Amino acid sequence: MKTVYYTATSLDGYIADENNSLEWLFAADAAADADSPDDRSPDDRSPDDSASLDAGHGYDAFIATIGAVAMGATTYEWMLEHHLDAGNAWPYRQPTWVFTHRDLHAVSGADIRFVSGDVGRVHAEMAAAAAGLNLWIVGGGDLAGQFHDLGLLNEIVVSVAPVTLGAGAPLLPRAITPPSMRLTGLTQSGPFAQLTFAVATDAAP
Amino acid sequence: MKTVYYTATSLDGYIADENNSLEWLFAADAAADADSPDDRSPDDRSPDDSASLDAGHGYDAFIATIGAVAMGATTYEWMLEHHLDAGNAWPYRQPTWVFTHRDLHAVSGADIRFVSGDVGRVHAEMAAAAAGLNLWIVGGGDLAGQFHDLGLLNEIVVSVAPVTLGAGAPLLPRAITPPSMRLTGLTQSGPFAQLTFAVATDAAP
Repeated sequence: MKTVYYTATSLDGYIADENNSLEWLFAADAAADADSPDDRSPDDRSPDDSASLDAGHGYDAFIATIGAVAMGATTYEWMLEHHLDAGNAWPYRQPTWVFTHRDLHAVSGADIRFVSGDVGRVHAEMAAAAAGLNLWIVGGGDLAGQFHDLGLLNEIVVSVAPVTLGAGAPLLPRAITPPSMRLTGLTQSGPFAQLTFAVATDAAP
Repeated sequence: MKTVYYTATSLDGYIADENNSLEWLFAADAAADADSPDDRSPDDRSPDDSASLDAGHGYDAFIATIGAVAMGATTYEWMLEHHLDAGNAWPYRQPTWVFTHRDLHAVSGADIRFVSGDVGRVHAEMAAAAAGLNLWIVGGGDLAGQFHDLGLLNEIVVSVAPVTLGAGAPLLPRAITPPSMRLTGLTQSGPFAQLTFAVATDAAP
């Protein structure tokens, strides 16, 4: 069982722009589709691809390894506004823990558990629920950082978009310095470079 | 002839830490050497490797394509302090333009030209001097951005270190959004992921 922070990022390390938008991310995907429609494998070309939440490609293989999901309030609200309000269903069959200090609307039919604080206790609950599968931290960056602070983050998988933003929500507002991280995977996936890093759990501050 | 911004960066988009240090970069290289000495090709194992200025690997092939070099004052001063003051020679045989508003010491025997402002004029001078070879913007990020602002930046090559810094000198403080950049290369080089992007010259703001 491992805990994975899997996300898309701009080349300069932002997971959302200053207006908390992901438009640049979907635009990168759409631009790649327009630019070279034959460059991608058939399973990358689902009809709703450019509006998907999969932050790139290889998502199906990834989500099959996941038994529990965690996200912050901002990420959750983004999903409500941009995904569910557009008529889509809640995308995860896995139980999802939403870290929040505010009252948030639940989604009917989805297993969503609102929590605040105590990342260590929530991690233990998630691990029990995942029953041997992996845990996914969707975002934001500071929540991933809080798992890392407790030595609970094992892997970072980033799909680097061909975009710079100059400002926005930081990928991971922490210093994780050598030899704590190690590049373990590198693939091109459509317009993105997907980088995988193993994180030493004794790397917490 | 193209103008290339070639640099190392942390995963979260910083080219130097808050103290303007590159210690994390050399530490990443050293950690990889210690971790897996047999993982790297023989030409990656020069004796002064961990103290080199090459921001990773594949540097020899890169520098052979370069006819002129540009850098900002901070980058230049870093080289004086950390490279030349340690007894090393000036590393570039190419003419080097240093953008500065301050008086800086020259390096005896090196072709260094101090300039301020007018990036377009300097670019033309560099192109003439390079005689068909490429131009290298060493850093910092804002200088690379100034070339981009004028539609003069053609390529970005970043060696992503297995490090996050959380704060520091930004890789490229600009918004370059789809479809302006395109991933054209992706290789693992020692502990680094090296990503190459083509930049559309009509992408300037």
